[in-house]
Amino acid sequence: MKGEPLTVLLVEDNRDHAELIMRTLEEFQVANAITHLVDGQSALDYLHGIGVYADRENYPMPHLILLDLHLPNVNGLDVLKEVKCDEALRFIPVVVLTTSDAERDVIKAYGYHANSYVTKPVKFDDFSKLLKDLGFYWLAWNKHPW
Amino acid sequence: MKGEPLTVLLVEDNRDHAELIMRTLEEFQVANAITHLVDGQSALDYLHGIGVYADRENYPMPHLILLDLHLPNVNGLDVLKEVKCDEALRFIPVVVLTTSDAERDVIKAYGYHANSYVTKPVKFDDFSKLLKDLGFYWLAWNKHPW
Repeated sequence: MKGEPLTVLLVEDNRDHAELIMRTLEEFQVANAITHLVDGQSALDYLHGIGVYADRENYPMPHLILLDLHLPNVNGLDVLKEVKCDEALRFIPVVVLTTSDAERDVIKAYGYHANSYVTKPVKFDDFSKLLKDLGFYWLAWNKHPW
Repeated sequence: MKGEPLTVLLVEDNRDHAELIMRTLEEFQVANAITHLVDGQSALDYLHGIGVYADRENYPMPHLILLDLHLPNVNGLDVLKEVKCDEALRFIPVVVLTTSDAERDVIKAYGYHANSYVTKPVKFDDFSKLLKDLGFYWLAWNKHPW
């Protein structure tokens, strides 16, 4: 539906979940490139273009951020808050993708203007279906401002 | 995927588009109830529970708002801004669904914290597919805080 390369920033400290997410998004060919980071500070460095991430050819601004909540260093809610308070970053859709369905996490995430909040299904087939639907919705249907 | 009745508030002044949207969402059984309003002021009255809309049994808080931008009385961007500045309403996902792909509209909508921005496809089949994907994503996968 779109011609430009579509990139996803996946911030996820569970390596099994990360592998499954990347494999599924690649299998369904909804993203052209996925960058995987395992902690919140690295995600903020990437988005602010700090250090090696200043090279936007190799580390492009993502069209979608998939954000786990329970992350080392800086947690997911703090990453979300910083992204949505930054006028240069707030346009990037942030989908919280987490095992937590605690009401306080959902309320905080929407309070910080998460675009969407999705819990990881336990069953493999459901997880796979979710990723297909999620990837297609955000990367093919949803409109980006650049 | 969820047991509770799922309700959509559709704010759309084009009656042909509104009919197509409602028919498709009903056909795919992704929503239990759809309320259709044709202008921005009525949408704000509904969401704030003013006048007849104080009766939340007949006019429940929606799980999803589908919002056209070019509306009579109060335009869509002003409705969006008011919803996302209101602590009691900002948790409701607002998907802008419009014919406009003007960059200024997309930027303004994300600036006011639209959850998603989608342009209406011209072809009937594409429009129908979009509504199925959109309805399923927001009403089945996306988690609501209540």
